[in-house]
Amino acid sequence: MPEAESKYFIYQARMISQWINNAIDRGSWAPTDMELLGDRLIRFVGGSAGVWRVLAIRSVLGDFLPQVERVALCRGNEALPLESKWTLSGVISNVRYVERSEQKELASKQAPLGRSEATMAALIPIRKTMAWWNLTQEDRRSIFETKSHHIAEGIKYLPSVARQLYHSRDIGEPFDFLTWFEYAPQHSDAFEELVRTLRKTEEWRYVDREIDIRLARD
Amino acid sequence: MPEAESKYFIYQARMISQWINNAIDRGSWAPTDMELLGDRLIRFVGGSAGVWRVLAIRSVLGDFLPQVERVALCRGNEALPLESKWTLSGVISNVRYVERSEQKELASKQAPLGRSEATMAALIPIRKTMAWWNLTQEDRRSIFETKSHHIAEGIKYLPSVARQLYHSRDIGEPFDFLTWFEYAPQHSDAFEELVRTLRKTEEWRYVDREIDIRLARD
Repeated sequence: MPEAESKYFIYQARMISQWINNAIDRGSWAPTDMELLGDRLIRFVGGSAGVWRVLAIRSVLGDFLPQVERVALCRGNEALPLESKWTLSGVISNVRYVERSEQKELASKQAPLGRSEATMAALIPIRKTMAWWNLTQEDRRSIFETKSHHIAEGIKYLPSVARQLYHSRDIGEPFDFLTWFEYAPQHSDAFEELVRTLRKTEEWRYVDREIDIRLARD
Repeated sequence: MPEAESKYFIYQARMISQWINNAIDRGSWAPTDMELLGDRLIRFVGGSAGVWRVLAIRSVLGDFLPQVERVALCRGNEALPLESKWTLSGVISNVRYVERSEQKELASKQAPLGRSEATMAALIPIRKTMAWWNLTQEDRRSIFETKSHHIAEGIKYLPSVARQLYHSRDIGEPFDFLTWFEYAPQHSDAFEELVRTLRKTEEWRYVDREIDIRLARD
């Protein structure tokens, strides 16, 4: 067994024994880790199962992610597929940058996930630099919207492109965000335009890892 | 076995089998959950072990937390004590409300954790309402600082009271934040004053669970 994997097994074994000990000691008091998140938690599982067929996985910046045939989406504590090459987890959280007037406009224009005509999807995991995370809130907002127009650009593509942002940084994931988009085939060009526009912004200078995964639903 | 506990065991068993399956299937690719957080992760373990002796545990608002003799602090993947009544986990994250001028003032005045004279500590886990989390960033900042002077009040007690905020909401914990304070016995009155002041603010109207745990170091 390679050293990294063996280290990982030891880590898992230690965690498992801790959970069992804690569960035994706990009595009627039961903190629940990921269980309390409910449907706020999502796992994207790359492997051979799931309704989303992989069209392409491309590293835009930084380390790649192994090629897989399919991606399964598991919410909350839904069982994961037995086989997988990778799992990316994220959590729906409170908004960080959207202001009141923007939130109102977003709410009035945005489309829900899962529309039957939206048979195309993109999963774009992103990690930002420490320089980004060391900025204050006002500095991040200024780069995000005042200079990069992230929200305003996104609104232009509503309701064609439905979106959901999942936060991963504080749950120990390799990416900070998992961005998810669903659209109908006739809006593919519009989606490419949105992605191109965002990648040229000042905000994107703080991105240090980005993978672009394109998917189609059977 | 009570139903909640039995449900918890089943959940744990399912998670364990998923991890084992994933680890086996993974090959050389190893996502790591909490391991990647490193020392950003902390666990406060209530039981009979640890350097912090419990003086009092009091429910300020909402459900109580079981009484324990001691609290152990475990960083990163440090092994947890074998016996425990509860474990509260949190993560050091980026700042959410502090602005540039405030950050500069905080940096110049604040004291580090672990000072030898700071033999008193308080662990105050807090949960906020959905109404709070549904506010936009600007509305939360306005309540937090413009109306409640949370940052300005805290600065008054620097460097006597050293502080660290841990985020828990997005890792599926029962609390949204774990607030931690360390101070020397002669600053106990000042600390009480800070806590009293904050609990009277408009921000605190959005708190729906709060436990106050006081500790002394041997």
